[in-house]
Amino acid sequence: MITRLSTLFVRTLREDPADAEVASHRWLVRAGYIRRAAPGIYSWLPLGLKVLAKVERIVREEMDAIGAQEVRFPALLPREPYEATNRWTEYGPSLFRLKDRKGGDYLLGPTHEEMFTLLVKDLYSSYKDLPLSLYQIQTKYRDEARPRAGILRGREFVMKDSYSFDVDDAGLRASYHKHRDAYIAIMNRLGLEFVIVKATSGAMGGSASEEFLALADSGEDTFVRSPGGYAANVEAVTVVPPEPLNFSDAAAPRRIPTPDTPTIATLVDRVNAEYPRADRPWTGADTLKNVVFMLQHPDGKRTPLAIGLPGDRDVDVKRLEAAVSPAEPQPFGDDDFAANPVLKKGYIGPEVLGEKSASGVLYLVDPRVVTGTRWVTGANQVDTHVIDLVAGRDFTPDGVIDVAEVRAGDPAPDGSGPLSLARGIEMGHIFQLGRKYAEALGLKVLDANGKLVTVTMGSYGVGVSRAVAAVAEARADQRGLVWPRELAPFDVQIVPTGKDGAVVDYAERLALELSAAGIDVLLDDRKASPGVKFTDAEILGVPTAVVVGRGLADGLIEVRDRASGERTELNAEGAADELIALLKP
Amino acid sequence: MITRLSTLFVRTLREDPADAEVASHRWLVRAGYIRRAAPGIYSWLPLGLKVLAKVERIVREEMDAIGAQEVRFPALLPREPYEATNRWTEYGPSLFRLKDRKGGDYLLGPTHEEMFTLLVKDLYSSYKDLPLSLYQIQTKYRDEARPRAGILRGREFVMKDSYSFDVDDAGLRASYHKHRDAYIAIMNRLGLEFVIVKATSGAMGGSASEEFLALADSGEDTFVRSPGGYAANVEAVTVVPPEPLNFSDAAAPRRIPTPDTPTIATLVDRVNAEYPRADRPWTGADTLKNVVFMLQHPDGKRTPLAIGLPGDRDVDVKRLEAAVSPAEPQPFGDDDFAANPVLKKGYIGPEVLGEKSASGVLYLVDPRVVTGTRWVTGANQVDTHVIDLVAGRDFTPDGVIDVAEVRAGDPAPDGSGPLSLARGIEMGHIFQLGRKYAEALGLKVLDANGKLVTVTMGSYGVGVSRAVAAVAEARADQRGLVWPRELAPFDVQIVPTGKDGAVVDYAERLALELSAAGIDVLLDDRKASPGVKFTDAEILGVPTAVVVGRGLADGLIEVRDRASGERTELNAEGAADELIALLKP
Repeated sequence: MITRLSTLFVRTLREDPADAEVASHRWLVRAGYIRRAAPGIYSWLPLGLKVLAKVERIVREEMDAIGAQEVRFPALLPREPYEATNRWTEYGPSLFRLKDRKGGDYLLGPTHEEMFTLLVKDLYSSYKDLPLSLYQIQTKYRDEARPRAGILRGREFVMKDSYSFDVDDAGLRASYHKHRDAYIAIMNRLGLEFVIVKATSGAMGGSASEEFLALADSGEDTFVRSPGGYAANVEAVTVVPPEPLNFSDAAAPRRIPTPDTPTIATLVDRVNAEYPRADRPWTGADTLKNVVFMLQHPDGKRTPLAIGLPGDRDVDVKRLEAAVSPAEPQPFGDDDFAANPVLKKGYIGPEVLGEKSASGVLYLVDPRVVTGTRWVTGANQVDTHVIDLVAGRDFTPDGVIDVAEVRAGDPAPDGSGPLSLARGIEMGHIFQLGRKYAEALGLKVLDANGKLVTVTMGSYGVGVSRAVAAVAEARADQRGLVWPRELAPFDVQIVPTGKDGAVVDYAERLALELSAAGIDVLLDDRKASPGVKFTDAEILGVPTAVVVGRGLADGLIEVRDRASGERTELNAEGAADELIALLKP
Repeated sequence: MITRLSTLFVRTLREDPADAEVASHRWLVRAGYIRRAAPGIYSWLPLGLKVLAKVERIVREEMDAIGAQEVRFPALLPREPYEATNRWTEYGPSLFRLKDRKGGDYLLGPTHEEMFTLLVKDLYSSYKDLPLSLYQIQTKYRDEARPRAGILRGREFVMKDSYSFDVDDAGLRASYHKHRDAYIAIMNRLGLEFVIVKATSGAMGGSASEEFLALADSGEDTFVRSPGGYAANVEAVTVVPPEPLNFSDAAAPRRIPTPDTPTIATLVDRVNAEYPRADRPWTGADTLKNVVFMLQHPDGKRTPLAIGLPGDRDVDVKRLEAAVSPAEPQPFGDDDFAANPVLKKGYIGPEVLGEKSASGVLYLVDPRVVTGTRWVTGANQVDTHVIDLVAGRDFTPDGVIDVAEVRAGDPAPDGSGPLSLARGIEMGHIFQLGRKYAEALGLKVLDANGKLVTVTMGSYGVGVSRAVAAVAEARADQRGLVWPRELAPFDVQIVPTGKDGAVVDYAERLALELSAAGIDVLLDDRKASPGVKFTDAEILGVPTAVVVGRGLADGLIEVRDRASGERTELNAEGAADELIALLKP
């Protein structure tokens, strides 16, 4: 097929969109692939839609290859099934909710576990019907608090979601691994460098889950890796608690005056100067920092939570969000302090924390705070701390919470060496859901012995529209988009320059010959300067450009590779065959 | 490709769905093509989705063929553009509206004129950029008051909508006719018998519009045709007003007592008995019936409307709805009569009607009520009528409204003969919108003289999901679905019967051979009785079934044509070649 740039509905823009923070957003808009319709909501222009369709095809082929069957659910869904699993409430403000003309409650589906569960319940009744995997490629909705980065995190987006149904755990594991393999194939075909990391299950529930992250410095997700092969989303990393210490000969706790120690560093200096340890100097890791949050629960309730952690680390907000989901952590504000006068900001100590304490505030500590560890911490009085406060002797928290920041060099929990940190874009997430949804919605089948058993499920998502952005992000350069052949909107862009009739004729003829060989050609037939045409070709990112210009008089044309920038001269005579060999190998 | 019925996600149902009124709804659900998720909201199961994808492909090919370019807009749209054209309000309760987490107003798009207009305004600025046609195949939303008939009239549905942009009226007409031709091609490829009728433009606005109706007795749309080629949606039929009559020698109006005349017929009998006409008997067509409605306006206001029409006809509610849109007509209730005591139910006459009358109620009359016509009508007093009330002498209505029922035998407005009535399913609607949207949203381009001119637009819709139902409706029989080859989910269904190893082997081999030739095969490999398999094959509606059974011992298999019921024996040896010739001619 030949598409003429003179009539193609596209305009390249000279300016970055005002809100563009990342390369994919900038270039997809500037190259006329997408266009913003509302915050986090985008229209697909002809070029963008072509790339999106190619991603869809890859995903569809790999799903079909593992025997998953395609269906399509509505996006507008009734409330009841989501009420049964409590997700109507748990999703909180991320769910788009609406009423129909009769006052019935509806939502725009963010994910479809409930609907698939009910559908299978409707149609299937025997273990002989299983295993079953169903998928859809469909428009989904999530009212993100911070839609950002164009289609990388939008509020309306295209996802492939699939669901597996098995009679037993072994079946679920097999279905899970089939999907895992399919996802590996998809990531490879998209040409994305990626890593598979352990993940948390969050609001989805279930036992095991992994994420597929495309490596990208601009990615929203931080993950860790060890030399020995450990890999996890930062939310899923676990700290291996140290062994408890014997505290039989530990000194008694002492309250000490500590004015003018506004930071952990100044506090540590003060205690080293005035109350030195015998064995080694105090460090920030010996201080116990108690941070209070307010949890906003989906049912509207607010409850405080105090977290105790070594003072050399901060709470990682994303890890905290994952740990307390579906509640949302919010800052503990001045009003909250005023309402809890026993909590002295900057000097909060374990003595007034815990459900049975004076404050009644739930008190959870970092896994490193094991029995026998001795701490410098707040004394619940301004300008005062306490030293030698021993965990398990002087205070007992309500439990453990593993939400401290993970740092490069921390040990991997499986002993495989020190962790390094990197960033990525979440492209896929696979879950062993288990029986949560089947139980809530009553999906049971008869087993081989005629007994009713609850089905066990997996759920698997791939960001389809996000993939367009992720590939753009991974490959764009300073001059525009750079598509791999499998996703490019066109196989080749032919750029005749100048007004010479022979040049135009040759370009038209070449376009026809390539098109006849099944090559998708973009022909820049505009009356524009060579400079404008070259700049636009680089912005649009078609993998190969063929420049037909002055050299034609000497029997030469030029082939430019968008990714490498390499330029090769070809004999104009017979160039079509060489190009066909290059483009359709 | 070979699909095995034993693992295909489908179950045929023995019972009709409780709410199924039409064949397509009944069979698409019973054959496992679609499944209800909520009122007017359906899921597509694997078989249904395959048919839907084939319809989409046909529509896409025909749109591409006229040079329209595919884009895809979001379904979740901001309020502002729809506010600018007043459709945010005019759509009334048919529009799904919602708020995002920040309180912003959004809607689920029922049609996208505004968004396309703004997109073109964003990117284009010169007459040289035009003509332009853009289209999308996309999920749309309309909160129907009475969703019915499965996917024939759903609240979430798939449509192809396109929009043309031209600098002048001649350009618009050319774009319109290109679309019209493409729609004819689409209807033909879908195998639908159809008619193109004049239509009203309704809330869409614009000058000219036509509908493509698939003929179907169960269709919601009534249309008329004349022997001379006139065709119109019943909402668009116009009555040609008769010439005014000379009333110089007409008798003066007389009030007459008319107790016990509860119907037009009894009234006519009474006046013929007691007040006979000299020239001919009175008929129902000589009575003037005045019917009052309450109009509910989109802005919430309610205003009364009285309609005067010959008593032998009723108001056609659909014609009335079209005429008063975007207002909605509602019955004039007892409360309304109580609030307007001058209106005597059953005896309302022109004397108290009209904006300047005692009631102040807007009074519009049928086009047949021309100056000089003499009427029997209400005298605004119980048990009393008036005769010889002459239009233009004794009363003057506020205007004309053409909403009386159209009857078989009525003359076509273009003089092409008597009308006949039939029913159809609206499959497409094409509009010459003109400049309404471009003006409201400021879409102008520079013309050849460097002057800014407002762009003129067309808008064109095809029901894509509805087409699946329309084809099912047109072709289903008493035993199930009957697909044409171009839309069938499979090319052939192979049905081995019995447990004979040779039968199973032959069926498997045949499936492989056909599949290798590019034929999409459904193989019924279930352990089920021949009866169950035959019944299911008929319900599913694959155009050709190949039965492999006892005859195989004699070297014979059977080919069944689903549409005609015809059965042909084939030599088992070499059957593959014959079948390939039949299925891929």
